[in-house]
Amino acid sequence: MAMSENRTEIASLGEFGLIEHLTRNIELQNASTIVGVGDDAAVIDHFGKQTVVSTDLLLEGIHFDLMYTPLKHLGYKSIVVNLSDIYAMNATPTQVTLSLGISNRFSLEALDEFYEGVYAACDKYGVDLVGGDTASSMRGFVISVTAIGEVVPGKFVRRSTARKGDLICCTGDLGASYIGLIILEREKKIFLESPQVKADLEGEKYVIGRLLKPEARKDQIESFEQAGVVPTAMMDISDGLSSEILHICHDSNLGCVIYEEKIPIAEATRLAAFKFELDPTACALSGGEDYELLFTIAQEDYDKLLLNEQVSVIGHMTEAEKGKKIITKGGNSFDITAQGWNAFGAR
Amino acid sequence: MAMSENRTEIASLGEFGLIEHLTRNIELQNASTIVGVGDDAAVIDHFGKQTVVSTDLLLEGIHFDLMYTPLKHLGYKSIVVNLSDIYAMNATPTQVTLSLGISNRFSLEALDEFYEGVYAACDKYGVDLVGGDTASSMRGFVISVTAIGEVVPGKFVRRSTARKGDLICCTGDLGASYIGLIILEREKKIFLESPQVKADLEGEKYVIGRLLKPEARKDQIESFEQAGVVPTAMMDISDGLSSEILHICHDSNLGCVIYEEKIPIAEATRLAAFKFELDPTACALSGGEDYELLFTIAQEDYDKLLLNEQVSVIGHMTEAEKGKKIITKGGNSFDITAQGWNAFGAR
Repeated sequence: MAMSENRTEIASLGEFGLIEHLTRNIELQNASTIVGVGDDAAVIDHFGKQTVVSTDLLLEGIHFDLMYTPLKHLGYKSIVVNLSDIYAMNATPTQVTLSLGISNRFSLEALDEFYEGVYAACDKYGVDLVGGDTASSMRGFVISVTAIGEVVPGKFVRRSTARKGDLICCTGDLGASYIGLIILEREKKIFLESPQVKADLEGEKYVIGRLLKPEARKDQIESFEQAGVVPTAMMDISDGLSSEILHICHDSNLGCVIYEEKIPIAEATRLAAFKFELDPTACALSGGEDYELLFTIAQEDYDKLLLNEQVSVIGHMTEAEKGKKIITKGGNSFDITAQGWNAFGAR
Repeated sequence: MAMSENRTEIASLGEFGLIEHLTRNIELQNASTIVGVGDDAAVIDHFGKQTVVSTDLLLEGIHFDLMYTPLKHLGYKSIVVNLSDIYAMNATPTQVTLSLGISNRFSLEALDEFYEGVYAACDKYGVDLVGGDTASSMRGFVISVTAIGEVVPGKFVRRSTARKGDLICCTGDLGASYIGLIILEREKKIFLESPQVKADLEGEKYVIGRLLKPEARKDQIESFEQAGVVPTAMMDISDGLSSEILHICHDSNLGCVIYEEKIPIAEATRLAAFKFELDPTACALSGGEDYELLFTIAQEDYDKLLLNEQVSVIGHMTEAEKGKKIITKGGNSFDITAQGWNAFGAR
């Protein structure tokens, strides 16, 4: 954990002093933000729009490890993963609230680093931090973020509205974040056993970056709108492609076929996977934390996304009775399971 | 901690099975709830209203002790304390999100008990649970609630808008919850030392009830509206009367005078306080967790609240230069501090 040299005990500020300190540089960006931090609640104006709300809880030791997660990145990521849920509704995030449980091993300087990342994300995505809560934690850093967004009435996109024959698409590339995690976990183990060994992670920059500083696909939501495409169903990929596609199938009461060879995996991800003896496809299917968009479109919309290099068509929706299948590069068909695929269930 | 006899391991359901189980009985109550639990985000329609958002984080060992907090009460209270913040803006809560960090010592039955309380509160206050997140916690139960409400544009009431000469009022009675806490902490200590001693808390029912199952003052917000009174400033009393009045003074750039004899304290609270050798006034000033409303009104509105037995006028706002004062029953004037009052600062 990167700590600055100065150390100001948080207790020396008191809770309200702390909130004032942490929120002193907020500049509100949305006209809809009527009241921000500093009252019982924030007030948001949403005339003529529908409000979208999403919330996430991040716990030290479960969702992040401070040994290899710089606090600034953690602050950035805490916001981004929530915004990703709002974009996945085809909506625009406008405000966030942030609550923290902080143990006394944190200095004010450490907390400032965390907030630097929070504000960087708010800035980049044009959202206002409008409220929150800070509490002492007996043990472990606790982060709770709620994001609020808006959408033109009726234009939100759910998981349950895919139709038979729709094309299954995803943005960007998958699997990198999981490999980044595996690499950092291994490096941590090596460091704990032999602190003198210096890690060389130059070649793994891409996959580690995808883990530590993910981005939400605001750009893709905007490009869909410009292209005049409204996905028929959509969600973000936080738990791995296979888990998410099963959600869309379940909620839409349909089956699917996806093709292994169509799953977008970056060259850097493949190289890192091979170096660490991992199967890149398995990483894409069950790794998670990609924060790309998984969505379905009507076949007649295919042409509208042809020029978008960030979108890959990976399969199509079928009748529920046909099951949820992945066709491997070798031409075999397997059942998709939340863990990737089920070789034993192959027919 | 009250545990049912059956024990179903939470891990046996999987995360999504768990969410489905916990949310299977939700009935949406607000027409504005377009999409509830089960997608990336909830969708809320707020045409012609302003949206109000508040968030709280509750951590085991800091905010609650499972040794003497029944889980159903804890679920109820987790919701209510957030709704209280929304009412304190003169707004109406409509939706909540709930995120939980759960350690594996919790059974599904224990979690069901918690949710029973959550749903009881949602039912009583007419709000919809629209989303959330569950995560494993390494240690300790973590509860994060975000409440969303609506208010007629411009009708929200802030902390910063009290005016010189305004009357300072509060609802209900104060100090009970803190005494309830002291009693339960003492009983816990006795139990840990001599488990065979059986606690007799019959006489302390009121103060313990105020701690374990607080209510938000929805009724008072409604009665203000009926009476045609809009408070000039308002907040809820979660940290103790003195801390909250200092907030209103600071944010409104004013001073105040409050009168010890006017502070409403229930007879049951006084009796319990004396029994445990506590000063009831000190408990009201610095105890906290009352979840009553502290508000200011124009003097000409005084008559409109005369018939409201739940409202006490406890003082008035002054120029900032006059300081923040409490006049004791003995007629002495002391500076109010966040901890109650500062006898050393008396002039």
